[in-house]
Amino acid sequence: MRATFMYGAGDVRVDEVPDPTIVEPTDAVVRVTLACVCGSDLHPYHSMPASEEGVPMGHEFLGVVEQVGDAVTDLAPGDLVVSPFAFSDNTCPFCREGFHTACRHGGWYGAGGVGGAQAEKIRVPQASGTLVRLPADVDEKLLPSLLTLADVYLTGYHAAFMAKVSPGQTVTVIGDGAVGLSAVLAAQRMGASTIILMGRHQDRTDLGRKWGATDVVAERGEEGIAKVLELTGGEGSHAVLEAVGHMPAYEQAYRIVRPGGVVSRVGVPQYEDAPVGFGSLFGKNATLNGGPAPVRAYLEDAIAQVLAGELDPGAVFDAEVSLDDVAEGYRLMDSRERIKVLVRP
Amino acid sequence: MRATFMYGAGDVRVDEVPDPTIVEPTDAVVRVTLACVCGSDLHPYHSMPASEEGVPMGHEFLGVVEQVGDAVTDLAPGDLVVSPFAFSDNTCPFCREGFHTACRHGGWYGAGGVGGAQAEKIRVPQASGTLVRLPADVDEKLLPSLLTLADVYLTGYHAAFMAKVSPGQTVTVIGDGAVGLSAVLAAQRMGASTIILMGRHQDRTDLGRKWGATDVVAERGEEGIAKVLELTGGEGSHAVLEAVGHMPAYEQAYRIVRPGGVVSRVGVPQYEDAPVGFGSLFGKNATLNGGPAPVRAYLEDAIAQVLAGELDPGAVFDAEVSLDDVAEGYRLMDSRERIKVLVRP
Repeated sequence: MRATFMYGAGDVRVDEVPDPTIVEPTDAVVRVTLACVCGSDLHPYHSMPASEEGVPMGHEFLGVVEQVGDAVTDLAPGDLVVSPFAFSDNTCPFCREGFHTACRHGGWYGAGGVGGAQAEKIRVPQASGTLVRLPADVDEKLLPSLLTLADVYLTGYHAAFMAKVSPGQTVTVIGDGAVGLSAVLAAQRMGASTIILMGRHQDRTDLGRKWGATDVVAERGEEGIAKVLELTGGEGSHAVLEAVGHMPAYEQAYRIVRPGGVVSRVGVPQYEDAPVGFGSLFGKNATLNGGPAPVRAYLEDAIAQVLAGELDPGAVFDAEVSLDDVAEGYRLMDSRERIKVLVRP
Repeated sequence: MRATFMYGAGDVRVDEVPDPTIVEPTDAVVRVTLACVCGSDLHPYHSMPASEEGVPMGHEFLGVVEQVGDAVTDLAPGDLVVSPFAFSDNTCPFCREGFHTACRHGGWYGAGGVGGAQAEKIRVPQASGTLVRLPADVDEKLLPSLLTLADVYLTGYHAAFMAKVSPGQTVTVIGDGAVGLSAVLAAQRMGASTIILMGRHQDRTDLGRKWGATDVVAERGEEGIAKVLELTGGEGSHAVLEAVGHMPAYEQAYRIVRPGGVVSRVGVPQYEDAPVGFGSLFGKNATLNGGPAPVRAYLEDAIAQVLAGELDPGAVFDAEVSLDDVAEGYRLMDSRERIKVLVRP
């Protein structure tokens, strides 16, 4: 089959590799019908050292079950399924508490002998705990929105969920990528009355406004901070949803969060140490949280909302490529020409 | 009147100074009947550079109102009152949200022209918002417990409150000082089923056991971390209440917190930068919060509990000195000979 590998910064290739097979009795093999490129794929696209061994890419997909291991009794070949971007058993203590990305038997696609989703097929470990079935007769037009539930929308949702966004609150979203825009949509659905979107790509912030952003701040750094404080009467935001992952975004976040407010991060931090002392978080009782979204915890509810026509985050996809053209998909997102790119194998 | 000043590390003196007077119409002057020495007073006691100008000390007190400004209509001379360790107007947006230590008109005793509480009298700014009346006929034996509500007990409570300790959870408290012990008591009252107290002074951990600690871990660093992980079946604590403020305590905290758990800090951080990236907080979706306790938010409820005989945190006081002997009180706490020292002017 064909599958996508990254061999270094900017070097994305589609290779011919053997089809995946059942390795553990808890596995399934899924034929990918729709995948996409993630903002987090752009981190190695910028910085990965050149390597002879490619890294399998892609962790968001819908597909059809082709094969299941002996221990998988609740899925059958032919089932249309969506997968969270991380696999999990859905039964360990951490899964039961809603933190599936810390599952004791869980892991990540594209690592540890598990392939990536920008491919014709993929092996899914812990298939019973991971995969969620979609109706066989689902309207094709809903598939992009359903695919956002694998990662991007529910990652934005996780930011808002962890920040406990509630009606009447002021929320600032840092980052106008697909996750930031999803966080705007989630905050709007949770009843935030003011949603400030910090971003400077107009095609993106226009979608943000459509999804509920009441204000857009294009300025960064001190100017951006001053603008948000001005918009909040000098008080700051109840919630700051940080969807970038770089230190300047973190610094903006703790500067604009209100006393007692929450900085909720879903951009994977490209730093380890950061200010957390009296002058940043402690003095104003700010909360810092967030992490890899436990998409599995939110997946069934979100599927029901999409199927009911209440939730439609599929508009983050503004381009589509075939698997053979996946490198062009990376380029379009990296250059900011497109927000998020569908990959159809 | 006599009042306590610190002139440098280890240099605590009682000086004769003019009585405080009403400066703003929102002020009151209170005659202090009971004060105490705080663990946070020990930070300057260790490190304050020598100075010709002393710093007024003390921020916890009960007393009797002597005088009120024209704008103070709900308090009268003769009222017995307790004060939070920070003053606040109790009406600004941050106060209304329960974060009085960020009050827009608030501040700290012993700074900005406001005196300290280890004194015969003290001027209280924002008196109507700050002071809470006690019954005139209150049992004298309850006064130490009521004094703990000015800071120490409600600071421990704040740690547990911010961590949202709930029935059945595992809670680890780092630090066996009076605040750590108060955090144990608060966690027990919130229904934690396992309470691990990290501390190595047996007189203190004995009181911790009496207040609900189910396990005591005397080890520190890697050994202490391993012990807590062992006690929690390798899973870690739902809540870690950090009542120390030094970096090794922070490092222990994020190592022993469970995925999705909370590190709640009430020890004033003696650092600014700390690990918060994928390898510490982000990867396991841990929450970091805490800060200066908004005691005023919790004060009325806690007074009612003490008066009803349900809550009795006064046992943290295991020594008493007169105002003239306040320096001995500092020494007793600094040497760990005593947990917390009452000061009776």
